[in-house]
Amino acid sequence: MTTYRTIDVAVRDGLCIVTQNRPERLNARNSQMYAEIIAALEAASADDAVAAVLLASRGRAFCAGMDFRNEHEHAYTALPGDSERVRRVKAQWSADDPIGAVVGLAGRFVAAFVEFDKPLFAAVQGGAIGEGFTSLLHCDVVYASPDAYFWAPFARAGVAPEFCSTVLAPRRLGATLAHAALYLARRISAEEARDAGFVLEIVAADDFAGAVEARVQEGLALAGPPELRGPTLRSYRALVRPQEERKALLAQADREFALVRARVDRGETERVRAYYAAHLPGTGAARE
Amino acid sequence: MTTYRTIDVAVRDGLCIVTQNRPERLNARNSQMYAEIIAALEAASADDAVAAVLLASRGRAFCAGMDFRNEHEHAYTALPGDSERVRRVKAQWSADDPIGAVVGLAGRFVAAFVEFDKPLFAAVQGGAIGEGFTSLLHCDVVYASPDAYFWAPFARAGVAPEFCSTVLAPRRLGATLAHAALYLARRISAEEARDAGFVLEIVAADDFAGAVEARVQEGLALAGPPELRGPTLRSYRALVRPQEERKALLAQADREFALVRARVDRGETERVRAYYAAHLPGTGAARE
Amino acid sequence: MTTYRTIDVAVRDGLCIVTQNRPERLNARNSQMYAEIIAALEAASADDAVAAVLLASRGRAFCAGMDFRNEHEHAYTALPGDSERVRRVKAQWSADDPIGAVVGLAGRFVAAFVEFDKPLFAAVQGGAIGEGFTSLLHCDVVYASPDAYFWAPFARAGVAPEFCSTVLAPRRLGATLAHAALYLARRISAEEARDAGFVLEIVAADDFAGAVEARVQEGLALAGPPELRGPTLRSYRALVRPQEERKALLAQADREFALVRARVDRGETERVRAYYAAHLPGTGAARE
Repeated sequence: MTTYRTIDVAVRDGLCIVTQNRPERLNARNSQMYAEIIAALEAASADDAVAAVLLASRGRAFCAGMDFRNEHEHAYTALPGDSERVRRVKAQWSADDPIGAVVGLAGRFVAAFVEFDKPLFAAVQGGAIGEGFTSLLHCDVVYASPDAYFWAPFARAGVAPEFCSTVLAPRRLGATLAHAALYLARRISAEEARDAGFVLEIVAADDFAGAVEARVQEGLALAGPPELRGPTLRSYRALVRPQEERKALLAQADREFALVRARVDRGETERVRAYYAAHLPGTGAARE
Repeated sequence: MTTYRTIDVAVRDGLCIVTQNRPERLNARNSQMYAEIIAALEAASADDAVAAVLLASRGRAFCAGMDFRNEHEHAYTALPGDSERVRRVKAQWSADDPIGAVVGLAGRFVAAFVEFDKPLFAAVQGGAIGEGFTSLLHCDVVYASPDAYFWAPFARAGVAPEFCSTVLAPRRLGATLAHAALYLARRISAEEARDAGFVLEIVAADDFAGAVEARVQEGLALAGPPELRGPTLRSYRALVRPQEERKALLAQADREFALVRARVDRGETERVRAYYAAHLPGTGAARE
Repeated sequence: MTTYRTIDVAVRDGLCIVTQNRPERLNARNSQMYAEIIAALEAASADDAVAAVLLASRGRAFCAGMDFRNEHEHAYTALPGDSERVRRVKAQWSADDPIGAVVGLAGRFVAAFVEFDKPLFAAVQGGAIGEGFTSLLHCDVVYASPDAYFWAPFARAGVAPEFCSTVLAPRRLGATLAHAALYLARRISAEEARDAGFVLEIVAADDFAGAVEARVQEGLALAGPPELRGPTLRSYRALVRPQEERKALLAQADREFALVRARVDRGETERVRAYYAAHLPGTGAARE
């Protein structure tokens, strides 16, 4: 079995639980975590014993966005368990075009979500910020803890909304709230997200992850007997998100990343960072 | 006028009320009811005195899904009042390919909803289960009694979501709740359906059907004078659901039925039924 | 700077506030107001100091629809500050085809909204009736006063839903509520519109317009420093409403206006007006 350093992976009763495990960085995603989540989704897709995936987190936040500080603490050498895709990611990451590497890796990451072929659940505790929020737009059902919140301050960091959020956020949260999130950096509480239909249920429990897992398992148990439920749910998802829809989403992700890249190339990102460094020196570098 | 055995049809002040009337079977739909609802929609479309249709029910449930038990209690001989479409349905139904007949009839049934060219209202009392739920996704405005609920346990029966529910349920209920309904067989209460925007209003009244009819009539009275309201509303509906959208819906219905057929052909439906017969012997044959 | 007679335009901290100012007519829009709002949007688009637009109103109502009474109180002579588009509008309006002029002008008006390339906010106080409602469907974020309401009694006036409302209303308000608005002339309260996700927030304040402006400014302040926020938000909006989506909306607007025109040509509009004149003599001419 693959060994992971930034996530934990467990399979219980046909449900694969992927737990983001970099709590000291509020689960902000570095290239290692990107590569590992991609690998975990690929493994879950290939494993007939897995009917669905639950994405969870350890610590105070669900995910605080991208984190490309200290990138060189990691080696990008291929490991024996790495899939073809992970190996390509690591190769690109070691190359000489940092922004190209980030955008390339992020593109592969979003593709792993778009193309995932089994139901995808999420248990969100604490902040889901930047892509920590937008990656949730690819999850079929989102559960939230009472302290969860969703925040997309992309403009503040000089970058652009990604992960297909420019089309998926209006669909999942309603256009008005999505526009406020993207244009006005409006922070959305768990309750607002539930009222908007994005969050299915706010689960208040000491063991939040366990309580969500129990709810998902209870539902999966209604989806036919264990040995048949896998192909059933996979076929349903193929209908809910058909091939042409996946293509359109990948094209939109490309458009979004092209904008990020153009903004970096034009120096806008750098100017935003310089502005905040000068005006709000205490806030540190804007993250994602 | 056509004589119906499983539904009642009445026209009052330009509103055609189609009442499902097989309460002893919780209005589960057999081939007779399919053919009769198709015929009633065709008659309502052709009748210039009819501006809109209200779909209602008698008894404890709105509709408990498909019911193909005891199918041979009915004769499929053409009746004088039968339309061309109804005659084709009966011919196909008498042929030698049971699953083909079911899928073919269901396809004609969904087409009758997709192509219906006047506003379609629904008054839902009690359970709307399986296609009792998914056929409502084609109704423009849904009213519910306090005890109404919506349930799509397709996986449990080994079949697949149909009636375009794989694309319409996310649009009508929000993607999160729709996914929970399809993947986790989540039962949706009248209140949840109203909060999700699928149900316009929960109507608590001794005469539920009458109270809904009064609300629809009051609205229709605002839609211009009786002699002009018909063409007005028909033209509005052509804009709200344009031709290309209807084509896309029929194509999606075909994909869904193809999946149902494939599951039956691979024996998955039979294996699910056998599983439940062995593990939950008291529950009887899964319905739809 | 252009002088306006039916609107006020002010730019504060990068936000352009367009205030409809015909309170004695409940801000019902005549051709002058159409031309002026088009001109104001074009100016805001061209002005690099403007990051976004807020559409507001003076008096009891946000906008009571179209108003083509007393059209000849205005001269349609080109003014020095008129843009090419405004000049074309005035030329067409002076021509000899009244319904063609109305539809042509309305078409240019909706195009000005569809093609606007910066975030568009709205502060709705009192009634938003007819196109006063449907034009809001093109605003990214809508704020409402407690007494705001949204009403689309198009059938009552013998005309048709326009401004892409037949596709945008289902997306912005949910299909069920939108259908009730279009087919049943259902009046939607501020609270219902908020629960449906169309209104972001109900703002109760003595100075309603000022309170909304403060909220928008607070959000814009999070969208990067003033000198960068403009291009940022413009690029985001290009992703949220891409070119193909704009094309589809303009095509839908054309289909809607074609229906309006056909109804007028067939005499249906006139028959509706005559009906109400005979049956409800006190109500005056139906407006829009």
